[in-house]
Amino acid sequence: MNDSRTEEVRGWLTGLQRRITDGIAAVDGHAFRADAWRKAPGEPLQGDGVTMILEEGGVFERAGCGFSHVRGPKLPPSATQHRPELVGAAFEAMGVSLVFHPRNPYTPTVHLNVRMLAALPQGAEPVYWFGGGMDLTPYYGFEEDAVHFHTLCRDALVPFGADKYPRFKKWCDEYFFLKHRNEPRGIGGIFFDDHFEGGFDTSFAMLRAVGDAFLPAYLPIVARRKDTPWGERERAHQLLRRGRYVEFNLVWDRGTHFGLQSGGRTESILMSMPPHARWAYDHQPAPGTPEAELTERFLTGKDWV
Amino acid sequence: MNDSRTEEVRGWLTGLQRRITDGIAAVDGHAFRADAWRKAPGEPLQGDGVTMILEEGGVFERAGCGFSHVRGPKLPPSATQHRPELVGAAFEAMGVSLVFHPRNPYTPTVHLNVRMLAALPQGAEPVYWFGGGMDLTPYYGFEEDAVHFHTLCRDALVPFGADKYPRFKKWCDEYFFLKHRNEPRGIGGIFFDDHFEGGFDTSFAMLRAVGDAFLPAYLPIVARRKDTPWGERERAHQLLRRGRYVEFNLVWDRGTHFGLQSGGRTESILMSMPPHARWAYDHQPAPGTPEAELTERFLTGKDWV
Repeated sequence: MNDSRTEEVRGWLTGLQRRITDGIAAVDGHAFRADAWRKAPGEPLQGDGVTMILEEGGVFERAGCGFSHVRGPKLPPSATQHRPELVGAAFEAMGVSLVFHPRNPYTPTVHLNVRMLAALPQGAEPVYWFGGGMDLTPYYGFEEDAVHFHTLCRDALVPFGADKYPRFKKWCDEYFFLKHRNEPRGIGGIFFDDHFEGGFDTSFAMLRAVGDAFLPAYLPIVARRKDTPWGERERAHQLLRRGRYVEFNLVWDRGTHFGLQSGGRTESILMSMPPHARWAYDHQPAPGTPEAELTERFLTGKDWV
Repeated sequence: MNDSRTEEVRGWLTGLQRRITDGIAAVDGHAFRADAWRKAPGEPLQGDGVTMILEEGGVFERAGCGFSHVRGPKLPPSATQHRPELVGAAFEAMGVSLVFHPRNPYTPTVHLNVRMLAALPQGAEPVYWFGGGMDLTPYYGFEEDAVHFHTLCRDALVPFGADKYPRFKKWCDEYFFLKHRNEPRGIGGIFFDDHFEGGFDTSFAMLRAVGDAFLPAYLPIVARRKDTPWGERERAHQLLRRGRYVEFNLVWDRGTHFGLQSGGRTESILMSMPPHARWAYDHQPAPGTPEAELTERFLTGKDWV
């Protein structure tokens, strides 16, 4: 708790949340509302956080960006499967997580998460891991957007080893996948977990590189697409695709699903939900349309850079 | 497979599907589409089914009613926890499942499921269980609707013992509960599982009584509410509540969640999804409104009859 490294990560995370929400608010023309929370004494997890939310904005129909910092008496079993020496250790977890749903169907939804987990074994040094990533979920495919987003992801990771981008790109494709649809959620990006390599400073520097790459990776795409004219057809397609987003988050996303099942803070967890979603039986876009092209040419796990 | 009891249950289930979809189509003014399916040879489960769907109808925005009948080489472990003698037995499962989402926010969404599971141990007689129930999810509370629905549920079960309705009513309240919201999905109804009491004929008769009670339990409520005037306010409330319906089905409903995770037929499983759903951060209806009354007076697990 009084660990200077924890303080440093917390400082960077809260700063990242502020910079990202400022950047998005400037594009949108509307401010985020801040909802600060603190776990009540006696709850199994202790801690605090700030959920920033912008709804019915000019560009964003729903944009949520949360910071949270919790401490618990005992690492969950899933975290100690490969580290028996940490079974029963207290822990501290903090991170920033965001999902932005633009109104314009030509503008993609985006997701970012950056987090640190510290195990605090009694009488020994803390053990740190980092995790996170970012990924893009377009409703209409644009090759230049996919290339730009993946290029910025790759460039952020280059200083940390040539293996990082290809590994984390593949990991992202595998994680954000709807098995019940046999379909990726979007065009991917990067995802990593349990990361600690080259010491604390280098590992944290990599997390910062990912977080700091977010606005340059996403804002140019928003600028390019946000004023594209659209009508009912595009809206209907966007809402059906957002139904898939809901399916992924509630059925497959471990953070969301287990968060809800284990008593996490519901409104903060579900800030990732789209504002509107739609379902229709066995809907298939007509062959040769841009709607069909999304699944055929873009949601394929292909290499973009 | 050539068991005459299986034939009899299948006959009743397909008849129930036909009667219910005919009854709903007559109210709606539009017909259901039928989508017949059959599992391909070589798939782990073999079997067939018919999904009946009505979308963008006059009264119903989305109404799905599915019949399915599958056979598998080995009972899932969850089904044999309390019956070690059946571990490894082949099985047969069949049922009718439906969810109807009306367009008018004053008309409740309804769910019914009736099913039979048969374990087929080698060299021994088949072992049968029945399960199912029905429950109502209103967007606006009406005491007479809740009383009517529960009265019909109770009356259907009276011939099978005075203990049935109270037990199955409680079971329903416990099952259709969003733990992450600390809120029931709706005003309940009845739910039962693993039921076999008084022999095959009596157990199956109870299943029939439940299925046959569906239209008389639901149609009078539809008739009473379907022409109530409504506007944007009611629609917005309905869509937010439907978001809760999605949350329950994808996070908590065992059939849906495990069906999707284990390679079930996605479109048939997700026929329960509402046509449109909405999410908003920390939305609370203003005190004293009919929207607040729904949660305060109706979603309480109270006894209606």
